[in-house]
Amino acid sequence: MPIVDSKTGKTRKEYSTAGLIQAANLMRGYNLITLHAAGSGHSGGTMSIMDITAALYLHVARHDPQNPFWENRDRIIWSTGHKAPSLYLGLGMAGYFPVEDVVRLRKLYSPYQGHPNWHMLAGVEASTGSLGQGLSIAVGIALAAKMDKKNYRVYCLTGDGEHQEGQIWEAAMEAGNFKLDNLCSILDKNRLQIDGWVKEVQNIDPVADKYRSFGWNVIEIDGHNMHQILSAFEKAKTIKGKPTLIIANTTKGKGISFMENIAGWHGKAPNREQMVSGLKELGLHYRLDYEKLLKKADEYQAEATQKLMAKVPKFSRDFFWNRQSQMKVAMKPTRAGFGNALQRYGDDERIVAIGADISGSIKISQFYEHDESRRDRWISVGIAEQSGTALAAGLAKEGKIPVFGTYAVFSAGRNLDQLRTTVCYGDFNVLIAGAHGGVSVGADGATHQALEDLFQICGLPNMHVSVPCDALETERATEEMLFEIKGPKYIRFAREATPVITTKETPYTWGIPNIYRYRGEQPEFIDAFDVKLATEYKNEKEDLTIVACGPEVPEAMRAAWILKQEFGIETRVMNLHTLKPLNPKPLVKAALETGIIITAEEHQVGGLAGWVSQALHNAPELYHKPLPFGSIGVRDRFGESGQPWELMWEFEVSGEHIAQKAKELYDLAKRTKPKTRKTTKKKAALKTTRKKTTKKKVTRKKKIQKGK
Amino acid sequence: MPIVDSKTGKTRKEYSTAGLIQAANLMRGYNLITLHAAGSGHSGGTMSIMDITAALYLHVARHDPQNPFWENRDRIIWSTGHKAPSLYLGLGMAGYFPVEDVVRLRKLYSPYQGHPNWHMLAGVEASTGSLGQGLSIAVGIALAAKMDKKNYRVYCLTGDGEHQEGQIWEAAMEAGNFKLDNLCSILDKNRLQIDGWVKEVQNIDPVADKYRSFGWNVIEIDGHNMHQILSAFEKAKTIKGKPTLIIANTTKGKGISFMENIAGWHGKAPNREQMVSGLKELGLHYRLDYEKLLKKADEYQAEATQKLMAKVPKFSRDFFWNRQSQMKVAMKPTRAGFGNALQRYGDDERIVAIGADISGSIKISQFYEHDESRRDRWISVGIAEQSGTALAAGLAKEGKIPVFGTYAVFSAGRNLDQLRTTVCYGDFNVLIAGAHGGVSVGADGATHQALEDLFQICGLPNMHVSVPCDALETERATEEMLFEIKGPKYIRFAREATPVITTKETPYTWGIPNIYRYRGEQPEFIDAFDVKLATEYKNEKEDLTIVACGPEVPEAMRAAWILKQEFGIETRVMNLHTLKPLNPKPLVKAALETGIIITAEEHQVGGLAGWVSQALHNAPELYHKPLPFGSIGVRDRFGESGQPWELMWEFEVSGEHIAQKAKELYDLAKRTKPKTRKTTKKKAALKTTRKKTTKKKVTRKKKIQKGK
Repeated sequence: MPIVDSKTGKTRKEYSTAGLIQAANLMRGYNLITLHAAGSGHSGGTMSIMDITAALYLHVARHDPQNPFWENRDRIIWSTGHKAPSLYLGLGMAGYFPVEDVVRLRKLYSPYQGHPNWHMLAGVEASTGSLGQGLSIAVGIALAAKMDKKNYRVYCLTGDGEHQEGQIWEAAMEAGNFKLDNLCSILDKNRLQIDGWVKEVQNIDPVADKYRSFGWNVIEIDGHNMHQILSAFEKAKTIKGKPTLIIANTTKGKGISFMENIAGWHGKAPNREQMVSGLKELGLHYRLDYEKLLKKADEYQAEATQKLMAKVPKFSRDFFWNRQSQMKVAMKPTRAGFGNALQRYGDDERIVAIGADISGSIKISQFYEHDESRRDRWISVGIAEQSGTALAAGLAKEGKIPVFGTYAVFSAGRNLDQLRTTVCYGDFNVLIAGAHGGVSVGADGATHQALEDLFQICGLPNMHVSVPCDALETERATEEMLFEIKGPKYIRFAREATPVITTKETPYTWGIPNIYRYRGEQPEFIDAFDVKLATEYKNEKEDLTIVACGPEVPEAMRAAWILKQEFGIETRVMNLHTLKPLNPKPLVKAALETGIIITAEEHQVGGLAGWVSQALHNAPELYHKPLPFGSIGVRDRFGESGQPWELMWEFEVSGEHIAQKAKELYDLAKRTKPKTRKTTKKKAALKTTRKKTTKKKVTRKKKIQKGK
Repeated sequence: MPIVDSKTGKTRKEYSTAGLIQAANLMRGYNLITLHAAGSGHSGGTMSIMDITAALYLHVARHDPQNPFWENRDRIIWSTGHKAPSLYLGLGMAGYFPVEDVVRLRKLYSPYQGHPNWHMLAGVEASTGSLGQGLSIAVGIALAAKMDKKNYRVYCLTGDGEHQEGQIWEAAMEAGNFKLDNLCSILDKNRLQIDGWVKEVQNIDPVADKYRSFGWNVIEIDGHNMHQILSAFEKAKTIKGKPTLIIANTTKGKGISFMENIAGWHGKAPNREQMVSGLKELGLHYRLDYEKLLKKADEYQAEATQKLMAKVPKFSRDFFWNRQSQMKVAMKPTRAGFGNALQRYGDDERIVAIGADISGSIKISQFYEHDESRRDRWISVGIAEQSGTALAAGLAKEGKIPVFGTYAVFSAGRNLDQLRTTVCYGDFNVLIAGAHGGVSVGADGATHQALEDLFQICGLPNMHVSVPCDALETERATEEMLFEIKGPKYIRFAREATPVITTKETPYTWGIPNIYRYRGEQPEFIDAFDVKLATEYKNEKEDLTIVACGPEVPEAMRAAWILKQEFGIETRVMNLHTLKPLNPKPLVKAALETGIIITAEEHQVGGLAGWVSQALHNAPELYHKPLPFGSIGVRDRFGESGQPWELMWEFEVSGEHIAQKAKELYDLAKRTKPKTRKTTKKKAALKTTRKKTTKKKVTRKKKIQKGK
């Protein structure tokens, strides 16, 4: 059953078994080049599933690349969304678009998102990327087919680690009970997940027995043997009254010797040397013109960059990080601070770390990596955020200090009801780590960029919430939360390296924000600012306040720098690291003293802005004071693939955007309220005086730093 | 292994098998009285599990009622939290407190909450009520025991419908892989759930095979045969290297002939006659002094009422609903409007309703109840909110209009990542119904009262959110969302009957709030108000605006009535039924025209207030206008058991509380801004003029009503 013309029913293109084997090999070659061009992505799983992809898209499934929405087409759902490049190559080879286009993978504005988005690319049937959801979608489609008496078949591609998700078993139960014989699920059993061997992370076997007990027909094959693959698909079509699971035993990284069976290749792209070496192994070194393809990728990137840069606010010079000879800053990912704290304090026997498969990525693995004896207090639950969260509550009940962490989309979303009912209502001492907060996650795209977590997390009674501003503050916040804060607690951090703006001397007190004041350019960015606890900060009648949290704090500082250098505007930057319980005092004080408030968050606008706005509105001291207010954050849209800093610009959360918004508000406030002109003059005078003070302060600060 | 003295190790109390049988019978008697006294609760399941409860608490588990936190005690986790009365009776019989105290069940301030809260009652090990979470907690505790080399055992009580939850299978996988032989789970297999027979709702069988394939030892028994129960528990203790599941085949409603095997008795309490008849069947009619017990319950209720009423704001007369000879109002639950809409429009072949076990309760069953042919478009997924949500997306993809509904805690929480990634990112046309929004849910307590759903739901890109104010508006909003709104959409409604404040003539336009203006007392409450679309409303320079949604709208109207009658304050009431996308214009207009804004929501403060506050703060028109602002809502605490209207007062979301807050703000604004005094005088003059106008308007309105 090949690729067909939906109008005539005739075959468009036919592949022999040998042809399919060859096609899969070619797709593996494209995959290497594509992943290398992207600089990130999932090598291991895309290689293990490639033979199945070739079989499905080029021979098994009835579909028409010229008519992607043909209502009688077979539907293919990629529950295992991170294998998207294989899906794209299947579509490209089938003729949906030139297969070479896939080299735009994971780049800004590209339809080839890190995880599939069906709105951006015809042929993609559903947007996936959060594991364990696709089988349910497939069940829904298969039910619709039955209702509408349609003959199309529904295919679903799943992974083995994914079978740790409870939702898979909900869907399996439904498919079995509904007797969905038009549904065929393929388990790409490559035996490895990010954290290691599936059987060690959280064994899913005997998976065939499990499916049979859920009412399925099960076929087990060698997932790299094209004859077996085709025959399994054929056999599945003949089974009546039951859905069929094809367990495809595969090799992760199949075809590339140095990738095969190595967990480390789960989410890694080959470098140039590895790409070339891989192409040689595949015998495609001469056949695929990788130079041309990489050039195509570069050209696309250049176009995207141009389009993006046209939208970024411009100033008289380039204020981006480390672009000038002075104001240099060190970059370190906030997640590193979380890992460091676990490494540093993990000897405390009460601490138990719970892994949900992406332990290296979120740095929770640092808990045991340097001390194997701590393995006794390391619990791997696999990809099972719901159970992991409630399990943590059970540990807390017995006096442990459990730390449960994964990407914030999953640790503050997939498990929300568990957080609410078991952890928060039970008021258990559980630390939840929400990693990959914000668009700066980068190329993985929307599904992995947590932009809504603060909404639900700050809404939970009993919860404590911290969003530290850099790696060092993350380390200190983690320590504070481990030992000082009792009850449910959530720490949010990011993926990308962001500026380090604190030192050991920087004050850090739970519940009290820090105030940063720009004092003039310095060789080191960090030295250009004074920093004080909000409670110790003395009013300087600045023109405005920027309230920020997380890696938006350095962006706000950069905005303060721009505002002063370009417009002479004085800014108070508030690092509001403790979001819940929220301390309204420094906010109200800032509103009274500086008048204009701007919030900045790497989140949908409101996660921070909503609480700040309410705190200000509810303060009786401000009932008679007008308050120009503005917010920087993601404007109610999902994220995208792209490089982290590209996305900071695209989603308008960069220092440039904060500065632009601040200038706008400043001008508007001035324009619509004529009397302030007088004040402005006074302020100008004040500024001259202040400059002298600034110098003194800088000298004092240097003394303190010398003293460390 | 009986109840022990944790200090000496000696037995405190010992039961023979016959004694246990007798105890279980007595507990069934107390259960009848208790549920009758509560007026709600779960008869069926508490009866089916009672023999197991008696065995566990009086013989099998090692525990000491004098030392509830004894570290070596066996832990018992009630994953099936709605069977709480059985748990309380187990504890009472064991000696944790006088067993008679359980008659305080489900009453305000009582430790005997509708679902267990471990902070309120020693002996309760965990707060549960959201199904499928307890086994994970038990896994956590069992792991802690292994880590700490403790010998205590962990018991977990689960139900059969609960096994439709994926989390159960996550926990089962973990327990099997971790070889937790200190864990014993009991499946109270009474074969019925709210929606009917488990095998028809969503079959879990062959459940023994399933557990075996997840690495468990399985024992199957008659759950009402005490010998078999005791022997199963003993055998479980001897199994090494595996957790044990005891499948207890039971009868729902066991012991009471008219309750046995009737799904309708899942969540229903016996009336007095049924109680007496049940006690007779149990042979306890003379033994249990039910009159005395019921009196005890009444006395407790009287105390609770007194305590509560001392906190409710007082006015010169009682403004509560229907307490006066005029201002009468009809009461109808908003959920009825949702059911009516599905019944009315369900003939549309595209509509597919998806049931998640509580179909009658949320009225989604009205879709098919009056037309069996619609059963073809009714999909029962059971208690599986995650899969149900993604399955709905699959249906929507194929052109269906799926409606997925359950309690909002589950339909907007348990499935959050599915809503986010599959439904909203995929932008599918799925209608999600969030029932049981607010504390007025009543006696079920915190776990079932959705107070946070708007946080996460309004935060999702592409989502449309409606919170209609009464039954009729719910019907109209449901119609609008079914057919006019494309994309993900969420409708929130409540459980309790609330005032009907709209008629067929009341305007309803998506995205445009209605304005209610109080015009003077009338025989019917609804006639005392003019209502207009915000876009057609003309400024009357009222003293303040109350912005409300859902059943807080009638409360806000009641506040307007109080404010006018008691203090002469004029109020604009805004029914903000469309929360997302939020229309800022009417809000900004109200702020400009009336000055003071108060929000009112039956939700944690912020779900409505946060968005209103931001909309006002971001409006440049208001940058130079001071704005006194106040919020009514639940103040960052979990709900409780109690009667709906008691809870409205206890959680300070009643009309009285809105009026009190409004008066406070009004006085404060006046006091701190002396010039308004002059304005006030002017307003007084204006009010006299307005009264005349009011009369005219009322007459006009009556004409319209006559014309229907």
